[in-house]
Amino acid sequence: MSRVRVHNFSVSLDGFATGEGQSLEAPFGHAGERLHQWFFGTRAFHAMRGEPGGGAGVDDALAGTWGDGIGAEIMGRNKFGPQRGPWEDHEWTGWWGTNPPFHTPVFVLTHHPRPPLEMEGGTTFHFVDATPEEALRQAREAAGGLDVRIGGGPSTVRAFLAADLVDHLHVVVVPIVLGRGERLWDGLEGIEDRFHIESVTTPGGVTHVTFTRP
Amino acid sequence: MSRVRVHNFSVSLDGFATGEGQSLEAPFGHAGERLHQWFFGTRAFHAMRGEPGGGAGVDDALAGTWGDGIGAEIMGRNKFGPQRGPWEDHEWTGWWGTNPPFHTPVFVLTHHPRPPLEMEGGTTFHFVDATPEEALRQAREAAGGLDVRIGGGPSTVRAFLAADLVDHLHVVVVPIVLGRGERLWDGLEGIEDRFHIESVTTPGGVTHVTFTRP
Repeated sequence: MSRVRVHNFSVSLDGFATGEGQSLEAPFGHAGERLHQWFFGTRAFHAMRGEPGGGAGVDDALAGTWGDGIGAEIMGRNKFGPQRGPWEDHEWTGWWGTNPPFHTPVFVLTHHPRPPLEMEGGTTFHFVDATPEEALRQAREAAGGLDVRIGGGPSTVRAFLAADLVDHLHVVVVPIVLGRGERLWDGLEGIEDRFHIESVTTPGGVTHVTFTRP
Repeated sequence: MSRVRVHNFSVSLDGFATGEGQSLEAPFGHAGERLHQWFFGTRAFHAMRGEPGGGAGVDDALAGTWGDGIGAEIMGRNKFGPQRGPWEDHEWTGWWGTNPPFHTPVFVLTHHPRPPLEMEGGTTFHFVDATPEEALRQAREAAGGLDVRIGGGPSTVRAFLAADLVDHLHVVVVPIVLGRGERLWDGLEGIEDRFHIESVTTPGGVTHVTFTRP
């Protein structure tokens, strides 16, 4: 059975996975880039952008597993863009330019479906109004036996965790206190009981915590 | 100048430092002992109880610094006991028996002052209705030039952090999701800017994060 995986999901010490006030200029609101600085330094991040360079330490090793064996992604609409409500125009094709780093079908959860968007490099965005279970069924079918990644944002990851659909969760705790935004952990009391958990701190100061279904 | 220090302060991934529903039988409410299992295994904890044994690894090294150079503690009333409101009786002398592990003056913050309690082993509980600044002034005077420890619970630590009175904060992130209780980090957005921060994960799976004033 293919697995459902979450990777490189950064949270603050107070559990926020994104800040307050998302906009076109600030995809993570007031958090800015602080939750993801650890990631920008890795070879994995550079490779994702088609650039050489980056560090090859433990952060990179963990970050780099995000794409292995993945056949589809599911993301929330707020990861796709800053718009809310009905689509005002169909010009917006995501934050990632003409060749997004996914290279698989991507299912965008939204209450406002629109036609699929076929991008360069193998990424096609499908817009679906579906429960986590139904979206996962569609993504699994599209993934052709490979794993499905839940790409975020926090409310999407939380919904899949609450429905007990996640097999592997990789969280990165960044030692900052954001104070406001969207929390990952709300409503997930006791989820540690469902997973084998390992933690490692890297010299950059973040802590990688992996939750794996036994 | 003597320093103000917080040690061995455990929080869950979602930032709770104690659970919901404190009672005589459950000092940490529904959290039970889950936040402090890492501590129970250390030599430092055993020594605190006057017992031999315990592990001597990194958890112990960090835990064991809690008493070095401390001349007084300040704690909130909820650390002292489960009672709320006016003291119904004066029989309660804390959770720690006749010889508490503090061995210094201890200032208990309460809106309901009562006479001091002199215990065995050098611990005397003083009950004060005071601001953090005023309580610290009294504790510093009693500490005779040594450091002052802020002993908890979460609202007390938070109040001293909010007033920028803490020089050293040792937090232990335990990979559980408590879901409810009392949060440490509320109202402390951006405190990372005031500290040099280091993190280390130990084989037991917890992450020690130290915040030190530069």
